[in-house]
Amino acid sequence: METQPASLAAALKEIGAEIDDAFDGLLSVPGDARARLYEAMRYSAIGGGKRMRPLLVVAGCDLFGVGRDRSIRVGLAVECIHVYSLIHDDLPCMDDDDLRRGKPTLHRAFDECTAILAGDSLHALAFELLVDEATHEDPFVRAELVGAFARASGPAGMAGGQMIDLMAGEIALDLAAVTRLQQLKTGALIGCCLEAAAIMGRAPAEGRTGLRGYARDIGLAFQIADDLLDHEGCEKKAGKRVGKDRDAGKETFVSLLGAERARQQARALVDQAIDQLRSFGDEADLLRAVARFAVERDH
Amino acid sequence: METQPASLAAALKEIGAEIDDAFDGLLSVPGDARARLYEAMRYSAIGGGKRMRPLLVVAGCDLFGVGRDRSIRVGLAVECIHVYSLIHDDLPCMDDDDLRRGKPTLHRAFDECTAILAGDSLHALAFELLVDEATHEDPFVRAELVGAFARASGPAGMAGGQMIDLMAGEIALDLAAVTRLQQLKTGALIGCCLEAAAIMGRAPAEGRTGLRGYARDIGLAFQIADDLLDHEGCEKKAGKRVGKDRDAGKETFVSLLGAERARQQARALVDQAIDQLRSFGDEADLLRAVARFAVERDH
Repeated sequence: METQPASLAAALKEIGAEIDDAFDGLLSVPGDARARLYEAMRYSAIGGGKRMRPLLVVAGCDLFGVGRDRSIRVGLAVECIHVYSLIHDDLPCMDDDDLRRGKPTLHRAFDECTAILAGDSLHALAFELLVDEATHEDPFVRAELVGAFARASGPAGMAGGQMIDLMAGEIALDLAAVTRLQQLKTGALIGCCLEAAAIMGRAPAEGRTGLRGYARDIGLAFQIADDLLDHEGCEKKAGKRVGKDRDAGKETFVSLLGAERARQQARALVDQAIDQLRSFGDEADLLRAVARFAVERDH
Repeated sequence: METQPASLAAALKEIGAEIDDAFDGLLSVPGDARARLYEAMRYSAIGGGKRMRPLLVVAGCDLFGVGRDRSIRVGLAVECIHVYSLIHDDLPCMDDDDLRRGKPTLHRAFDECTAILAGDSLHALAFELLVDEATHEDPFVRAELVGAFARASGPAGMAGGQMIDLMAGEIALDLAAVTRLQQLKTGALIGCCLEAAAIMGRAPAEGRTGLRGYARDIGLAFQIADDLLDHEGCEKKAGKRVGKDRDAGKETFVSLLGAERARQQARALVDQAIDQLRSFGDEADLLRAVARFAVERDH
């Protein structure tokens, strides 16, 4: 527990239980031939993952006094997008992974076509959640959320980053290109978590700038830490295959910078992320703890 | 041209050109490693298909005096969803098709992972289009559109229908079950075209009921006609493989009803669809022509 302050550990545990409950309600299995599709979504969505993205949404919303019921709905939507992307990225024609969050990947436990449809379904459900009146009474806020998530997950964001990653085995990427790849592949959705919080909280422009900087810095710090864990990593703790970038001949922050400089870089990014929150008081302590956790975790 | 009145043929040609132009603008190829992703989207989205769904949106919007620039944007969004679903349905683990709209399917022309990402990207772009201010100045209208499309394309709609269809080779479906399957798989999105028109036009409740009935009836009529074309079909005209349901041992409207009764049923649905439009005057003639075309086409 040294690497995770008690308050952060408690916050992650709490949000994990809330997200599981929310998925349980959202994905109740219908009594028809679609049952298998819902069971597949439940398999991937419930009971796994650190729930870091929902925590970022909720901790960000807390800065602006957004009610928990609402911020959890937005956190659930971002987790729908994140889980859909993991399901599709794990497919045989993509990264071909057998293990995810400590259990067989969805296409291994079910089959490929169910996995594709479960991903597509979670993708659509994210927007259905965001646009519902229960998320916010003001349709302008709901529309802004949809726009932010659609941009972050589409070809100018996550899907575009995954495409660059798939090409990375063939094209030699330099540090700028790997940074850009990761900013799209994982950074855009992490940034969207804080952007969504600012939208929900109708934050003034100054508040948004700091949160945007924070999100960009921790997004990269998390990725560098992931590369370090992948480099040194323990499959059991990670709950997924490690060393695969090296095996695929792909450049990472570690291969380009070396482990020591990569670690320094990640720590510098965390300091910078925390500095971005200087206009916020104690109420941003959870976000500061998340930033530190980015580089101190062992999974 | 006998099967397609000149006005419908002209309308389809016009909308086809407008949708191609709009996709050309939406999908301009970036100068980075995402180029292949955009080229894949362009390959599937531009220059193919009847563009029946965008026509339904635009013809529906015309009933309420919605401007063409706006109705085309909504038509483009529905075509994004439709094309994404075709790309994913054609994948080897799904229907494993080699031919679509008269040319190799996307995963054949490119590769599987690019096809999955292109589908995912078009899915996200649909929501980005709908929620943009250029679609409608009122965020409530934009939010309503997003909700309608998310429900129609998700597990309670198109994706759920595809799941049932994939199970259909293993479970023997009766007429009610095949009707339900098709109402989800293709009917939900067709219904959404008319619902979107009603949302854009802020149609009163009475107008919406008629359009909903019309959409349900032509959705089924189109599907029965597809089954008849698949049964009797010509691969060259269809631009895709025919006879595959029979080969897969799947029940269709034709296998359950016989060709003659299926044809009668489709015609009865078309008459019923046209009757649903009785509260509209001449301005609904294009929708009436679309209904007749459902059963009179040869592709």
